[in-house]
Amino acid sequence: MADVDFKILEGAEARSYAAGDVIFRQGDPAEELFVIRSGKVTIRFGDRVIETLEEHTIFGEMALLEDESRSATAVAASDVELVPIGRKQFLFLVSETPHFAINVMRVLARRLRAETRAMRGLG
Amino acid sequence: MADVDFKILEGAEARSYAAGDVIFRQGDPAEELFVIRSGKVTIRFGDRVIETLEEHTIFGEMALLEDESRSATAVAASDVELVPIGRKQFLFLVSETPHFAINVMRVLARRLRAETRAMRGLG
Repeated sequence: MADVDFKILEGAEARSYAAGDVIFRQGDPAEELFVIRSGKVTIRFGDRVIETLEEHTIFGEMALLEDESRSATAVAASDVELVPIGRKQFLFLVSETPHFAINVMRVLARRLRAETRAMRGLG
Repeated sequence: MADVDFKILEGAEARSYAAGDVIFRQGDPAEELFVIRSGKVTIRFGDRVIETLEEHTIFGEMALLEDESRSATAVAASDVELVPIGRKQFLFLVSETPHFAINVMRVLARRLRAETRAMRGLG
């Protein structure tokens, strides 16, 4: 459900990170989102791991959508290959591939539901 | 930012609710999302008010995206007029109007950021 159509990744240039590398930090300025081509990434909020993401998932889309700084920290949980998608390319993908847009929405909705459930656990 | 292009509302049939009416309850099956044409709506999770939404905002998109039941309860905070958007129309809007897709994503991203901040406050 959270997967991105693999065609987006074909021929795209990837960036490599080693296990433990910080991909971005909470508060960093944001110019791109990422699709995981291979490996795993953890999203952390302070000391808390919010989510562990597997290949073909996207992350980093929030800051891009909101024009704000990174709301969380992303760390390579294994050796990973990421395909960066800049703001312009993101808008192009959304307008040309509704399937991609729906996938991004699903990722966001799923995260929101998980957060709200966690909230209920605490509240 | 969370506003929906007003053209979507032109000519659409609206549903009216009186202040205090429940629009949907947590756990209800979901077949549509809503755009607020006029009035205010509160989104509640148990006893907690998650958000108060003003006119031209959308809500109810999560269950539609995830094919799940309603994750929260929506209550009319004033007399309100809502334009319902069914699943098929939603997919049509996303594919025909990228601007609408981006707006839905921004609504979701903004809510997610707010939830995560609230979480930090508690954690």
